[in-house]
Amino acid sequence: MNTKRQQNIRRLLKPRHVCIVGGQAMADSIARCAQAGFAGEVWVVNPKYQELGGRKCYPSIAALPEAPDATFIAVPREATIEILKELSARGAGGAICYAAGYAEVGGEGVELQKQFIAAAGDLAVVGPNCYGILNYLNGIVLWPTGHNGALVETGCALVAQSGNIALNLTCNDRSVPFAYVITSGNQVVLNVADFVDALAEDPKVTAIGLYIEAISDIPAFSRAAAKALANGKPLIALKAGKSELGSQLAMSHTSSLAGSDRMYDALFARLGVIRVNSIPDLLETMKLISIAGLPKGKSLAVFTCSGGDGLMTADLAEELDVPLNPHSPEQVADLKTQLPNFASVTNPLDYNTSLWSHEDLLTKCFGTVMRGDYDAGMLILDYAVDGEASEKACDASVNAIMSACATYGKMPIVTATLPELLPARVRERMAKQHAAPMQGLPEAMRAFAATARFARQREELKAGSTDALAMPLTPVLDGPTRIVSEHAAKAALGAFGLKVPQSRIVPVVDAAKAATELGFPVVLKVAAPVIAHKTEAGAVAVNLKSSGEVEAAIARMHESVAAYKPGLKIEQVLVEAMVKDVVAELIIGVKRDPQFGLALVVGAGGILVEMVEDAALLLLPTERKTVEKAINGLKIAKLLRGYRGKPAGDIEAVVNAVMAVAQYAEAHRGDLVELDANPLMVLPKGAVAVDALIIQADK
Amino acid sequence: MNTKRQQNIRRLLKPRHVCIVGGQAMADSIARCAQAGFAGEVWVVNPKYQELGGRKCYPSIAALPEAPDATFIAVPREATIEILKELSARGAGGAICYAAGYAEVGGEGVELQKQFIAAAGDLAVVGPNCYGILNYLNGIVLWPTGHNGALVETGCALVAQSGNIALNLTCNDRSVPFAYVITSGNQVVLNVADFVDALAEDPKVTAIGLYIEAISDIPAFSRAAAKALANGKPLIALKAGKSELGSQLAMSHTSSLAGSDRMYDALFARLGVIRVNSIPDLLETMKLISIAGLPKGKSLAVFTCSGGDGLMTADLAEELDVPLNPHSPEQVADLKTQLPNFASVTNPLDYNTSLWSHEDLLTKCFGTVMRGDYDAGMLILDYAVDGEASEKACDASVNAIMSACATYGKMPIVTATLPELLPARVRERMAKQHAAPMQGLPEAMRAFAATARFARQREELKAGSTDALAMPLTPVLDGPTRIVSEHAAKAALGAFGLKVPQSRIVPVVDAAKAATELGFPVVLKVAAPVIAHKTEAGAVAVNLKSSGEVEAAIARMHESVAAYKPGLKIEQVLVEAMVKDVVAELIIGVKRDPQFGLALVVGAGGILVEMVEDAALLLLPTERKTVEKAINGLKIAKLLRGYRGKPAGDIEAVVNAVMAVAQYAEAHRGDLVELDANPLMVLPKGAVAVDALIIQADK
Repeated sequence: MNTKRQQNIRRLLKPRHVCIVGGQAMADSIARCAQAGFAGEVWVVNPKYQELGGRKCYPSIAALPEAPDATFIAVPREATIEILKELSARGAGGAICYAAGYAEVGGEGVELQKQFIAAAGDLAVVGPNCYGILNYLNGIVLWPTGHNGALVETGCALVAQSGNIALNLTCNDRSVPFAYVITSGNQVVLNVADFVDALAEDPKVTAIGLYIEAISDIPAFSRAAAKALANGKPLIALKAGKSELGSQLAMSHTSSLAGSDRMYDALFARLGVIRVNSIPDLLETMKLISIAGLPKGKSLAVFTCSGGDGLMTADLAEELDVPLNPHSPEQVADLKTQLPNFASVTNPLDYNTSLWSHEDLLTKCFGTVMRGDYDAGMLILDYAVDGEASEKACDASVNAIMSACATYGKMPIVTATLPELLPARVRERMAKQHAAPMQGLPEAMRAFAATARFARQREELKAGSTDALAMPLTPVLDGPTRIVSEHAAKAALGAFGLKVPQSRIVPVVDAAKAATELGFPVVLKVAAPVIAHKTEAGAVAVNLKSSGEVEAAIARMHESVAAYKPGLKIEQVLVEAMVKDVVAELIIGVKRDPQFGLALVVGAGGILVEMVEDAALLLLPTERKTVEKAINGLKIAKLLRGYRGKPAGDIEAVVNAVMAVAQYAEAHRGDLVELDANPLMVLPKGAVAVDALIIQADK
Repeated sequence: MNTKRQQNIRRLLKPRHVCIVGGQAMADSIARCAQAGFAGEVWVVNPKYQELGGRKCYPSIAALPEAPDATFIAVPREATIEILKELSARGAGGAICYAAGYAEVGGEGVELQKQFIAAAGDLAVVGPNCYGILNYLNGIVLWPTGHNGALVETGCALVAQSGNIALNLTCNDRSVPFAYVITSGNQVVLNVADFVDALAEDPKVTAIGLYIEAISDIPAFSRAAAKALANGKPLIALKAGKSELGSQLAMSHTSSLAGSDRMYDALFARLGVIRVNSIPDLLETMKLISIAGLPKGKSLAVFTCSGGDGLMTADLAEELDVPLNPHSPEQVADLKTQLPNFASVTNPLDYNTSLWSHEDLLTKCFGTVMRGDYDAGMLILDYAVDGEASEKACDASVNAIMSACATYGKMPIVTATLPELLPARVRERMAKQHAAPMQGLPEAMRAFAATARFARQREELKAGSTDALAMPLTPVLDGPTRIVSEHAAKAALGAFGLKVPQSRIVPVVDAAKAATELGFPVVLKVAAPVIAHKTEAGAVAVNLKSSGEVEAAIARMHESVAAYKPGLKIEQVLVEAMVKDVVAELIIGVKRDPQFGLALVVGAGGILVEMVEDAALLLLPTERKTVEKAINGLKIAKLLRGYRGKPAGDIEAVVNAVMAVAQYAEAHRGDLVELDANPLMVLPKGAVAVDALIIQADK
């Protein structure tokens, strides 16, 4: 994106003056804009009215006192283009286009969209077909309808590809402190990545929530997300269109390729983007971070006055890999003096009705726990029964957890199992003390687990991990391709460190001699002419133990190759040493994706490939540590580690092999179309790729 | 349970008169009881007061006009036992014991619990250590604290092992029509199964929700659940304590064995119990059924005015196997005339802002869809923005879906993506028309999917499926056990139809002769003495191809067996035909569980066993259809169906083998401790168990 437009986004997000262009339908919005607390000028442009929503109207953009930093355009699609031209000519900052009816409707809309883009010039244009922007840091409502929200000092930003979902989110009853709500609409000029890039720099933005249907520019998104990670601003993404039907709908809805959901998973994992699967999860995660920040680690102490709540929390903790470490013996001894003698002292701690409503005793009890080796304290509590006495008793527990956590510098969290059972007054009081008021137990536990994971990933980045490096541009290759011969492919990969069997490539008549020199048993494959599907063509013979077996195999090959493709004649054969003592077969592959660039797959091979889904997907470039983690996370890793007394496989050699393939692919980003090292035979010592396929752009 | 007590439960749940025994602390509860709408007598017993909570006090149970049908006892644990004696002597119905401090606290509590049980006699006793019962059918509040709820004509029942969770659930803001809320406490006399049994008969009960930590009497629960399924009353269970930590906590919390979570999954699956994983899921599922009933099938039509909501719904539908079938060509043509020409007509249908707020057009549009082959129509809608105009526009869509579904006899559902964005007034209006007001999109989709599954399972039961048959009592065997010899085990299982290799059992000197008669290759195993771990002992030799190889193998066996256990001498050997052309190895096993009885496992064998979890667990007895489904659901089924051009395995033979094992186990329910047919070699034709182990009680 050009620098001018980048500056204009910043003007749009922190405007000195705003302008609304529209008719009577915008009168309420103009009034709302005036009430939202904005300190700057609000101008209205309408040539037909003297006044709208209580504001004087200017007849045109040209008539405004200055070029406006942010303009909301609520006129029909053709007129919108004219206004864009005027704004651009005037040197305005950003413009939000409410009108729909461009490329998304097809037909003449496509032509109008071209004019729209031309008219935009360097303007930071949001939409078209969007709801606009709410800015609760400065009290700016550039939004066509009602909304819920109040001024904040700091808060999270939401960037949504659906105006309706953004609208719903702003109307939550969950005390999420929004700083910005941005609807990106058709993303004709500005896309999600541009907003993330600008928001990642804003010290008042705590976290960035995303509702995404498709990301059009993955490298740009990747750069922006890496910046957000470096700046400690978590991205929380609800990516819809995971399913086949959903993906089809996304394509028709946003007119852009949705891309495979597994690619998004891989992208999010490398960039520390927290992926959520529901609207409440999106909100609760944004809230946790915005109010309570990032925990130092993932060790959690839980407090309940209900055994049942404790059980449910323990179940979720195990599922989410959040350790509920037991209290230390010293803590247990101390807690036993504070609780009735029949109480069992565990984490989660059932603090028992004997302490209920006694704030002093509760503070002492919770403090006894929080002084230990925990990163956060979570109180599970529902404000169930109405009435002053009951609410005061609940308040006592809330106060106690806040005070115990404050004393020991730990993150305080209060979670209601039913979202509706944590009253707004309690939430607001908590937020002031940076204690997270969470609504829904699974949502709270998932949010905590994800936040702790983000914090760790950020530390890794600081410690020099290069894994969140932005992804390079990968040119689209749509011309003809060519298959590199197996022998050449192995040589090329071998140069990057991939181990392949010892081999000779010889005229067919010299096969037996070459085999004798290599030593039996051998594998024989037709090398020239190049045959893509050698096994199907009968162009492979394995485990040949003597010259005689080699000769017999060649005789059979002549027949089957001729039958496979009449006229095909074997010229050269590849004679390879047979690999023995195989512990496991893996596959390594690289695919070129038009959106995501180069993606590497490593997984179980052989019969396991399709029977059990056991493969990891890594976007390139990647680093050794990530590869190690991916391989150790495979199901087949059990086999590699030595299974039921069988020999272990050489995992380090597997990592070397994957790194060799990854580095080869990286070096050939310009022309690599597809690559397979399959199977990779894992041995007790070493790992050897016995077949290799490379497809390149044929330049 | 005795008949007298069964009658008393029914008196407790539909009492003609209720009695509260307690002091000043119960005054509010007594007043609440009076306000709840109960038409019968409410008596208060307290020897010290003239009046409590506005009611005259009787000095004793003996002084009451009649034996009360339902009594709430809120006096200390020792006094509770005295009251129970008086109630029992008087011939009362049920009694709810609020006091805690019995077996759950250990020590003297254990002795008190014995006295408690003795005092209870035939009374239907709830608790101790429970919150009591709310009965919203008759307006009866036998409950120590506040609650939210109103009289209903029909509604769901909740049975909860945690008083606190029950209390929270009653305070939901979700319009769940509760008929009963029952907290089961320590379950010393009545347990969850007893309540389910009684509630399953009540025509006013629509569904039964359960919060469970452990089920103490699985056969009783199984009988009650089968009755509920037959009567069309779904059970919805939130079972906590799934994780290792959770299971430990459950044990200490309820002092009963939690049992493996996989066993509960198997139990729930066979009985049609809907398992949920969160408090909101429990409530929303109960609500859907209570308000809208059961759908005829699972085909769903979805309507949204937001592409984003449609995408999220499509993703959930795929995950949950809910078909969103496309509209018929005729419907599509009709819908195209009703929507703008750029709109794409899909299911989910984005009905577009052009129809927004036009109830007549919406009703026509929704009707065009609902007249098709759908079982339910779901409108995704959030009442986001406050204000009359906005709410009226939302109402138009709600009215339209209700009216379109009513016209075509389909189930109407409205779902808000944020639980808080479906106002109570809308929910109440919908409920009156049997339209389900759902709060939370994932919860709504899961509830619909589960409800449709329940409906199908009920149809299968009606059609003669025996799978939900109650589970028989399985006596606990804790005496000595004995291992049946492999040869005898194979013979015993063979009698039930399990195929085993041809074999001879001969003195060790006759082995070679027997092998020659059977035909080579053979397998040789030590038969006498009986060795449990033959492979470890070196007591097995496979693939012996000649008399010479047999003799050599025997020589090696003598050595290794002597080394394994000095003094052990081989007497007899089992000579078996070697099984060839194996497509896959399976394992079949039966375990005896102290709670769940006999459980059969069938899964992938060999190297796959521990690497990929690929086993199905079935509680016995089971039926052929269930076994077929379980086997076809295994990952290894891909291999069995013929994989990558390899021969297919004989799945019918596998089913026969599992049925043979299941029937053997069933016939030996009295003494079978453990059984393994492992491996079961699946062949292109047939399936042969090459090893078998049976452990029996040694009587």
